[in-house]
Amino acid sequence: MPTKDNIVSIFALGGLSEIGKNMYAIEYGNDIVIIDCGNKFPDESLLGIDLIIPDISYLVENIERVRALIVTHGHEDHIGGIPFFLKKVNVPVYATRFTLGLIELKLKEHRFLRESELIEINSESNFEIGEMCISFFKVNHSIPDCLGIVFNTPEGTIVHTGDFKFDLTPANNEQSDIHKMAAIGNKGVMLLLSESTNAERPGFTPSEQMVGKNLEAIFKKAERKIIVSTFASNVSRIQQVVNAAEKCERKLALLGRSMVNVVKIAMERGYLLIPKGMLIEARDINELPPERLTILCTGSQGEPMAALSRLSTGNFRDAEILSEDTVIFAAGPIPGNEKNVTRIVDNLYKLGAHVIYGSGSSSGMHVSGHGYQEDLRLMLTLMKPKYFIPIHGEYRMLHHHRMLAESVGVKQENTFILKNGDVVDVENTIARCTRSLPSGNTYVDGVDVGDMEFVLRDRKKISEDGVLMIIIPMNKQEEKVIAEPEIISRGFVDHNFSELRKNMNQITLETIHELHEANRYSWNVMKKQLKRTIAKYIKEHARKEPMIVPILLEI
Amino acid sequence: MPTKDNIVSIFALGGLSEIGKNMYAIEYGNDIVIIDCGNKFPDESLLGIDLIIPDISYLVENIERVRALIVTHGHEDHIGGIPFFLKKVNVPVYATRFTLGLIELKLKEHRFLRESELIEINSESNFEIGEMCISFFKVNHSIPDCLGIVFNTPEGTIVHTGDFKFDLTPANNEQSDIHKMAAIGNKGVMLLLSESTNAERPGFTPSEQMVGKNLEAIFKKAERKIIVSTFASNVSRIQQVVNAAEKCERKLALLGRSMVNVVKIAMERGYLLIPKGMLIEARDINELPPERLTILCTGSQGEPMAALSRLSTGNFRDAEILSEDTVIFAAGPIPGNEKNVTRIVDNLYKLGAHVIYGSGSSSGMHVSGHGYQEDLRLMLTLMKPKYFIPIHGEYRMLHHHRMLAESVGVKQENTFILKNGDVVDVENTIARCTRSLPSGNTYVDGVDVGDMEFVLRDRKKISEDGVLMIIIPMNKQEEKVIAEPEIISRGFVDHNFSELRKNMNQITLETIHELHEANRYSWNVMKKQLKRTIAKYIKEHARKEPMIVPILLEI
Repeated sequence: MPTKDNIVSIFALGGLSEIGKNMYAIEYGNDIVIIDCGNKFPDESLLGIDLIIPDISYLVENIERVRALIVTHGHEDHIGGIPFFLKKVNVPVYATRFTLGLIELKLKEHRFLRESELIEINSESNFEIGEMCISFFKVNHSIPDCLGIVFNTPEGTIVHTGDFKFDLTPANNEQSDIHKMAAIGNKGVMLLLSESTNAERPGFTPSEQMVGKNLEAIFKKAERKIIVSTFASNVSRIQQVVNAAEKCERKLALLGRSMVNVVKIAMERGYLLIPKGMLIEARDINELPPERLTILCTGSQGEPMAALSRLSTGNFRDAEILSEDTVIFAAGPIPGNEKNVTRIVDNLYKLGAHVIYGSGSSSGMHVSGHGYQEDLRLMLTLMKPKYFIPIHGEYRMLHHHRMLAESVGVKQENTFILKNGDVVDVENTIARCTRSLPSGNTYVDGVDVGDMEFVLRDRKKISEDGVLMIIIPMNKQEEKVIAEPEIISRGFVDHNFSELRKNMNQITLETIHELHEANRYSWNVMKKQLKRTIAKYIKEHARKEPMIVPILLEI
Repeated sequence: MPTKDNIVSIFALGGLSEIGKNMYAIEYGNDIVIIDCGNKFPDESLLGIDLIIPDISYLVENIERVRALIVTHGHEDHIGGIPFFLKKVNVPVYATRFTLGLIELKLKEHRFLRESELIEINSESNFEIGEMCISFFKVNHSIPDCLGIVFNTPEGTIVHTGDFKFDLTPANNEQSDIHKMAAIGNKGVMLLLSESTNAERPGFTPSEQMVGKNLEAIFKKAERKIIVSTFASNVSRIQQVVNAAEKCERKLALLGRSMVNVVKIAMERGYLLIPKGMLIEARDINELPPERLTILCTGSQGEPMAALSRLSTGNFRDAEILSEDTVIFAAGPIPGNEKNVTRIVDNLYKLGAHVIYGSGSSSGMHVSGHGYQEDLRLMLTLMKPKYFIPIHGEYRMLHHHRMLAESVGVKQENTFILKNGDVVDVENTIARCTRSLPSGNTYVDGVDVGDMEFVLRDRKKISEDGVLMIIIPMNKQEEKVIAEPEIISRGFVDHNFSELRKNMNQITLETIHELHEANRYSWNVMKKQLKRTIAKYIKEHARKEPMIVPILLEI
């Protein structure tokens, strides 16, 4: 339903009550502008699923009104859904130079680069879409070239912060546009959308500079090889590793495909400065004495297939970790990844390495890219919005952000804690949330994209107690069972299996017989009833609930 | 192989390079004494498995020499394996009063209470087993009635600390036996086994008293119901909740089966003092005004079936959480449980509750029961052992503990970082590790106990990409396929399934035909080859790796 001319609508299709799959939208008149299109990684309960992306049914239904996708920065939870989105709703994509580099990489992998229209922007850009004038401002984050977005609409100004912190001593001197932010706030902001990731943490986020100092201290003491693992996209962090390596006259090798790719993009586009001659190829690692060597690799989250994990188990072709080497985790473990990380730490100690690991506050080798409470208060103070929608957070983070807003003068009743799909309509300077749109999860499994609830349900059941397949050969015409049922199990264990099998055969034949006596020959009914009787028996006698698959085989 | 008369041997069957399933042993001459018998909870990769316990094959093989099981305290990772152990090796069990209460509960559940011989001990007990004189000393921990054990053998004194911290202001005035520990150390300790859980954390473990103060402060401010969630076994913590409730004149209700059971045991045996009339039944909760009410419940780790989780989703019969209630997580999240906990925190905020949660250092509502680095140094200093085996920890924790020992004078070469099964033999005051015994994991799934590697492997495969069942009806005599193969899938998804099915049928028939042409009629060979050809096809064309189950059905 197109909005009336004097209503501007704001909603999210992803990113609320969750960290991941960010996708926001501003709608005015006949125009919808999308902000970000990310993905989310599934937790262990989503068996076999690779990715989750936002359900964009609403946008597909209104495809003629979707005008553009503006991307705030290049993290996966902001760009990971783009190829899937563009394949259904192909609109121009506006992003900064570094962000575009990462988006192009992704579109190449999905074989959709040529079909896309990518437009480079920077913090000075401004353009119109319909009656919305769009401009930008720089923010600091844990990846280069991040922007916040300003939408000037006839119903007032809406600001989207992107992901941010305030770093007053950023690496590579990439200052944020504080004066511009103040000017925007002074002109008047009707509604602010601001990210909530660290809304639970008191104080200010520490500066990137602190990591640089700590890295230098460790580099000075290290006697042999130094291996640093961090996010390939964290170019500031990489710059500090480069700086520390330069001070110790160490060469630098890159391990891990994403590390090699992203460093290349960052260097080509001027975001990363590596002294001439410092970079060496992976295959030349063993040519140098260990005290002349730094290795920068992927795998700081303990990902089993990434470089660091393979190094820790001696499974990397070009390099190995030896006794007295120093390994630095220059990235804190994201909640959920702690066990994968400590597994690698254990392996590294067994190899005799020195290991520096843990959260940023304990290791000193990591600072967050997301603002703590005082950063968030500062943004709210600069923007002084009338209305506030906390975004990019799980419920408790949105809740805490609302309290922060209240503490700097944004009334509780003017803050909306929304769910994905909820719409805030602003009309005549009043904002209300009275309706919602379709929203949800779309699952990606390999090349398949779609609703996979039943598949997941099946996988989950089998993963718990296994599967029992009961194959019953039937004569088509006479509807008779013509041989003993065959029972095959996978993932099912019972000390009494032969007994169970005998009884299941018996129950199978009896069940079919009873149905035939009652003149019920439908195979669907037979399968349903067999599932019921067999499941009941297994539950009572083996106290388990495997999946039962009755297979009536026509012979 | 029985040890020679003048060698004392020490080994672990669980608890090394892991947290969980602790089981240690001291062997001298014809006598083996076991220390603790715990279980371990599986992580998500162990699909459908309930528990892991130590593989006790060595003890079963030497059953005539196993004399006793001494239990240091009642945590699951020290008593959870006892019923399974006693059913195979039924020896007398020595434990303190509170610990025995928990062990009896467990043996009742396993219907083995009458068959067991349980002997109550305390810190003053001493007795002989063979030529070993065994005595004890009190230690502080997060459960009442914990002991360390002293083995006086002809080859020297061996000390096992149990789990411990040093709490100089413990709840209920349960001081540890510091003077006794000093005296033991002075007499001379040949070898010390000391727990390593918090060996990575600098400083001293904070005292339980700190939590009491913080609880009181929150209780004072709370306007409506207070719900506190903690471990049922943490009786000191519960005592402090009781004390805080008493000061505010609030009644106390217990929710959750283990909370009710353990509080009962603790009160009966004098470990918990609850003022007369303070306890009320769950069903009377709604009779009282909220400001007169405290609820103590299970579920601090976010366990989906426990009381707190059900309260957070409105699924608890006798009670509900309402707006302005205060919920306190008086237990830090154990690594791995963080997501389950934050899921519940989100729900509680949605209900409008105030929530206090997080690690002990951020919430102030929890302190660890395990010693930090200075506690561990203090134990090493008191005991001043010649040899040291760090126990009860993952590899990096054992590694850090060795460094701590070195810093207080225990030479690195006298510290053994062992694996489960490794044996340290002490002879003529020299300790060596030159051999190892069978050790490993035994899995418990429902009522089944055993080696389940193949079952787990199957479940894991199916959980990732599902299962494809290919049923081929065969004529027995003529070894011919007599009908079209039937292909059934579960948990497998592909947009192109009908195409895949057609081709799989084709490949199936071709594979069997080729084998017959080569005169190979063995059904095992046929199944193997079918798995190979079908899997290869699916991998190439659908980029997936489901489990393939070829079923040759005799008709």
